Amino acid sequence: MGSLEAERTTTGWAARDPSGILSPYTYTLRNTGPEDVFIKVTCCGICHTDIHQTKNDLGMSNYPMVPGHEVVGEVVEVGSDVTKFRVGDVVGVGCVVGCCRSCRPCDTDNEQYCLKKIWSYNDVYNDGKPTQGGFAGSMVVDQKFVVKIPDGMNPEQVAPLLCAGVTVYSPLRHFGLMESGLRGGILGLGGVGHMGVKIAKAMGHHVTVISSSDKKKVEALEHLGADEYLVSSDAEGMQKVAESLDYIIDTVPVFHPLEPYISLLKLDGKLILTGVINTPLQFVSPMIMLGRKAITGSFIGSMKETEEMLNFCKEKDLSSMIEVVKMDYVNTAMERLEKNDVRYRFVVDVAGSKLDQ
Amino acid sequence: MGSLEAERTTTGWAARDPSGILSPYTYTLRNTGPEDVFIKVTCCGICHTDIHQTKNDLGMSNYPMVPGHEVVGEVVEVGSDVTKFRVGDVVGVGCVVGCCRSCRPCDTDNEQYCLKKIWSYNDVYNDGKPTQGGFAGSMVVDQKFVVKIPDGMNPEQVAPLLCAGVTVYSPLRHFGLMESGLRGGILGLGGVGHMGVKIAKAMGHHVTVISSSDKKKVEALEHLGADEYLVSSDAEGMQKVAESLDYIIDTVPVFHPLEPYISLLKLDGKLILTGVINTPLQFVSPMIMLGRKAITGSFIGSMKETEEMLNFCKEKDLSSMIEVVKMDYVNTAMERLEKNDVRYRFVVDVAGSKLDQ
Repeated sequence: MGSLEAERTTTGWAARDPSGILSPYTYTLRNTGPEDVFIKVTCCGICHTDIHQTKNDLGMSNYPMVPGHEVVGEVVEVGSDVTKFRVGDVVGVGCVVGCCRSCRPCDTDNEQYCLKKIWSYNDVYNDGKPTQGGFAGSMVVDQKFVVKIPDGMNPEQVAPLLCAGVTVYSPLRHFGLMESGLRGGILGLGGVGHMGVKIAKAMGHHVTVISSSDKKKVEALEHLGADEYLVSSDAEGMQKVAESLDYIIDTVPVFHPLEPYISLLKLDGKLILTGVINTPLQFVSPMIMLGRKAITGSFIGSMKETEEMLNFCKEKDLSSMIEVVKMDYVNTAMERLEKNDVRYRFVVDVAGSKLDQ
Repeated sequence: MGSLEAERTTTGWAARDPSGILSPYTYTLRNTGPEDVFIKVTCCGICHTDIHQTKNDLGMSNYPMVPGHEVVGEVVEVGSDVTKFRVGDVVGVGCVVGCCRSCRPCDTDNEQYCLKKIWSYNDVYNDGKPTQGGFAGSMVVDQKFVVKIPDGMNPEQVAPLLCAGVTVYSPLRHFGLMESGLRGGILGLGGVGHMGVKIAKAMGHHVTVISSSDKKKVEALEHLGADEYLVSSDAEGMQKVAESLDYIIDTVPVFHPLEPYISLLKLDGKLILTGVINTPLQFVSPMIMLGRKAITGSFIGSMKETEEMLNFCKEKDLSSMIEVVKMDYVNTAMERLEKNDVRYRFVVDVAGSKLDQ
């Protein structure tokens, strides 16, 4: 199929200002170009970054803004040069929908690090129009940034894998931390953290969840399968784990001290930051130097890693733990997410919601 | 040879209090045990850490303290089980003189990261006595922590290699940064920095020196062979180098912002801290995450790496640039070092100094 004759409209839920409150918003989508896939959105996860963006926490927000970057949908039309997808395929879209295709990151399948990447929303596409995310009836996305969801996986449970899942999988893969028997820490048990426990356990790691309170202890140990649960204010417990972890995936998206966690790492251990925090984080250099430790970070994952991660989750029978809501609950859901009051990810049933009211 | 019958004394120059002023101090050395090497000190470099230690900047100093951990000397006696050295050998001693020999770092030739390592001075040895460093007539050191100086190398120029040299060589080796063609940055042009330029150039890297002023520009480019010289306050110059370096070796031993330098690193680039700084350093997480960059650090090097580095320097005909002084100048030298007023390392001619006055 080729392009349609006329531009189409779709309705999503957009923030209009830094209050971050979403309400119905109708806008045009570009025609399905030769490399594009036109997707009817089935569902979309809510990530903490959506709050940062809708509330202009990063100072770079443009309105109206339709958030949502954990999108699962169904292909309803494909461009003439699209080879990877067919009408009816169940597909996913994540944080990025464009890149330059000629820089070193792009040339090495690290397109998520392209300095000219285009974000799924709150960005400007090649055609000069604002990009809009997955809290909407449909999206038009370049096939490079669309991933096939393996058969038999539940769309709603898959949605959070497209950001939270690959955010954990990618650094474990990239930093050579996939071998069985490693000792890992997961700091913070939200959307990313709970996938961290599941994916690290599936890799055969000994997993310690580190949290600021013991509220989620039973869940972490019994429902998610973590091996240990550590409250960061428990000096004795922290001391017992000192110098023992190969890595910590730090999922906390707000300011927090790093040194208590650096001290848990063994020689050459890595603290892997995955939360966007604009308040400066601190450490003293001897804590890093005297164990050749590293403070590093990782941003989602490449499309190749996303595909690999989905196959890994399918093979290991992993899925996310979610609370499914309708679009008219999205503002409440975002408020609750901000208070960390969700087990562990909200997913909006977009196809089952009335979007225009 | 076995142990001598009686304990011996030696005279060194010791700090007595946090003024850090050194003066003659006579103390006993242990007998030469079966694994020990008795060394007559020829010369000893002055490192910035010696100032931190003598002035109690790290809050862990014990007095009297004889500093000095870039020691070159001659073997005058060896213990009965010493196989690596003979009387008359020219040898070196660095920052560490003991370790537990049973932990993971010790088992993997990373003994400098052993949590029970014993420092060359300002520490307590296995026999309960304080360790004292190389600003002294002689030392008794376990053979494991003694390294042979390759024939034909100048002792005074070798001394700084034992700390400054290996401090640069070790991370380049460990982090897989030895291949030709890499683009490296050296932040700060002191004792460690100048060896950084020389060693990185000898590895075939394109080397950019980054400094707070242009004072050392001619020296860096003409005498040390750096390819570029960048003043950190030159916004335009910094912008040109942005996202281009594979690594930066950060040798600055006092508080400084990290973000200007992180921004110079390319995808997967590493900021390698080598200076002990107890004031917290800061960064914001997106700068790390959005390029999968790492803030890491490295502490001297293993004995194996020290040996390797000496052979590398011999093969590449590398040596340090130094100013040789007598012991009665040591206090002035340390004052000048604190002001960065030396090209690039002071080395005390210990054997040629009168130590007892």
